Amino acid sequence: MKCLALTILVASSLALAACERQTTGSDAGTPVGPPATTTATPAPEPLLVTARQLFTVIPDTPPELPGNAATPEKVALGKMLYFDPRLAASHAISCSSCHNLGLGGTDNEETSIGHRWQRGTRNAPTVLNAVFNTAQFWDGRAADLEAQAGGPMVNPVEMASPEVHVPEQLRGIPGYRDAFARAFPGEADAVTLANAQKALAVFEASLLTPNAPFDRYLKGDASALSAHEKTGLSTFIDKGCIRCHNGINIGGGMYAKFGVFASPGAALLPPGDKGRFTVTKVDSDAYSFKVPTLRNITLTAPYFHTGTVWDLRQAVAVMGDAQLGSTLTDAEIDALTAFMGSLTGTQPVVTLPILPPSVATTPRPAP
Amino acid sequence: MKCLALTILVASSLALAACERQTTGSDAGTPVGPPATTTATPAPEPLLVTARQLFTVIPDTPPELPGNAATPEKVALGKMLYFDPRLAASHAISCSSCHNLGLGGTDNEETSIGHRWQRGTRNAPTVLNAVFNTAQFWDGRAADLEAQAGGPMVNPVEMASPEVHVPEQLRGIPGYRDAFARAFPGEADAVTLANAQKALAVFEASLLTPNAPFDRYLKGDASALSAHEKTGLSTFIDKGCIRCHNGINIGGGMYAKFGVFASPGAALLPPGDKGRFTVTKVDSDAYSFKVPTLRNITLTAPYFHTGTVWDLRQAVAVMGDAQLGSTLTDAEIDALTAFMGSLTGTQPVVTLPILPPSVATTPRPAP
Repeated sequence: MKCLALTILVASSLALAACERQTTGSDAGTPVGPPATTTATPAPEPLLVTARQLFTVIPDTPPELPGNAATPEKVALGKMLYFDPRLAASHAISCSSCHNLGLGGTDNEETSIGHRWQRGTRNAPTVLNAVFNTAQFWDGRAADLEAQAGGPMVNPVEMASPEVHVPEQLRGIPGYRDAFARAFPGEADAVTLANAQKALAVFEASLLTPNAPFDRYLKGDASALSAHEKTGLSTFIDKGCIRCHNGINIGGGMYAKFGVFASPGAALLPPGDKGRFTVTKVDSDAYSFKVPTLRNITLTAPYFHTGTVWDLRQAVAVMGDAQLGSTLTDAEIDALTAFMGSLTGTQPVVTLPILPPSVATTPRPAP
Repeated sequence: MKCLALTILVASSLALAACERQTTGSDAGTPVGPPATTTATPAPEPLLVTARQLFTVIPDTPPELPGNAATPEKVALGKMLYFDPRLAASHAISCSSCHNLGLGGTDNEETSIGHRWQRGTRNAPTVLNAVFNTAQFWDGRAADLEAQAGGPMVNPVEMASPEVHVPEQLRGIPGYRDAFARAFPGEADAVTLANAQKALAVFEASLLTPNAPFDRYLKGDASALSAHEKTGLSTFIDKGCIRCHNGINIGGGMYAKFGVFASPGAALLPPGDKGRFTVTKVDSDAYSFKVPTLRNITLTAPYFHTGTVWDLRQAVAVMGDAQLGSTLTDAEIDALTAFMGSLTGTQPVVTLPILPPSVATTPRPAP
């Protein structure tokens, strides 16, 4: 959602392509210009040519994680852990509580409810397609899903399990001892927090949403987007949203200062949360945040790291003023949100895992 | 778990059958006596003959609910509602929070954590096979699943949605308006709390656990129970556990006073909770509770309406002292718990529903 106008990560050729689109000035719903090739296959419309330079299709299958091969046993273990509330001190909060796969991989809360009803400090980002983000958390403090998975389990305001307790809890459940041994064969003591993180990472990497209308468009189905959605895509390119929201996740690939042209106000940008600065301690990172993915954005309200904006139209308007220095018209907002609606992919179909049962000696929930 | 020694719901012929088993005095693991018939099929062992008089097999398919036909559309709606945390004022607690289908249909908590981390007053009973209980809740205050489903949504210490808010919330989610219309065709305003309860009931009625070793035994597979489990079954019959724990759910069919022969103590039977009396106001119902099912009992710790006993062996010992007036030996407890382990059936395989998304006008969670 946040664009840093001065940081152009998009190759200049892409920016040029966007400018060209702008100078042609045509209705994005109508293919423009003659075919550029003489083959029998009709040339893709210029908007598609530009889009293909900016964005990548979500694949049907997960990418391989370096040093963490996704065996079926490890994915199955990760799925159990993802849904197991016994990883929380209370035995009442699981990964799926805040990253609900029925709700776009989020909890649709401003900030999440954690241990003893404490509130988190930032909005829970979606787990869907998160494997493709350049880093995890709003401030990018975790390099990848594996590192991220270690956070909430032991965070006192989230699942609140003391770090040493996580493997104790899991070792106390006989079925997990077996499941870890199968997922990490040959390890003398496979039940570790580090292995739990690896298993969670391979499961989460499988949570992809391919086949969005926009992906079908990128693949060459010109009819996958309506004329209005194509207008939105053109606007998205021409207005410069693509400076930050690009790549496979249409976001998720960089950090950007929130409030380049105008402050969005203290409700959206509280002075106490300096974002990326808290990780790097570099002054220029103050109030920078990871640019969130726009994939499945209509499912993942409320918006921004504060979760204070519930209406996608309002979020788009804020972006125009704060990041682009351009007050968007209603028609532009209409088109942009129509385009964003085309970013909803097929949601992952997940069978609820039957969890290994506790026994009399299993550590019990904190009172 | 509770037996009322003076209330014999089992026909006296069954009690006689149990006595006969006792007088034969054989190891229950060994079939006793000659075949009673002259046909080619060997006669079932006497233990099985007795068991068939006391217990019924869990079917593979749900029973029909009177006045509430289970159409696919209604079951699908009920499944969405079951997993939807937006039915709670906080948007953070769903039916599945306390009746987790990965954890035997319970939350494995002494008492459940509800709105603003309030604790419920009694242990959450399993939803699995609950359709076969004579009534719902520990005090039987709901006649059936449909009536039960109306409780937790509006209970201030559970999901805490004001009663009028439930349909408001659901009407505010466009996908639910469609789903209710499909599930309740022909109704002018299908989005009602009453219809939500009906849909939840048909989904919950589908949550059966057939094919437990004990069910395979009842169906005639004499090898489905080990010798030790058969000893446990004999003990279960002979000691009188079957006076209360009988029928299809091996419990769930009657109320029983807790502490017939000896008080289990204030931790297990706090004086402030008079159980069934709170519903009927009949003095003789004081400290009576619905006899819980023993199906999947090894998955549903902790035990009793207080949830204060985590070890099934201890729970069995309490039952001996409090309900049977008989201090059970270690060997008897071993055998009884082995038998109870044979009551775990195939857990329902449920695909997590993708929930209809909220929109900008959808009512938001209570702050």
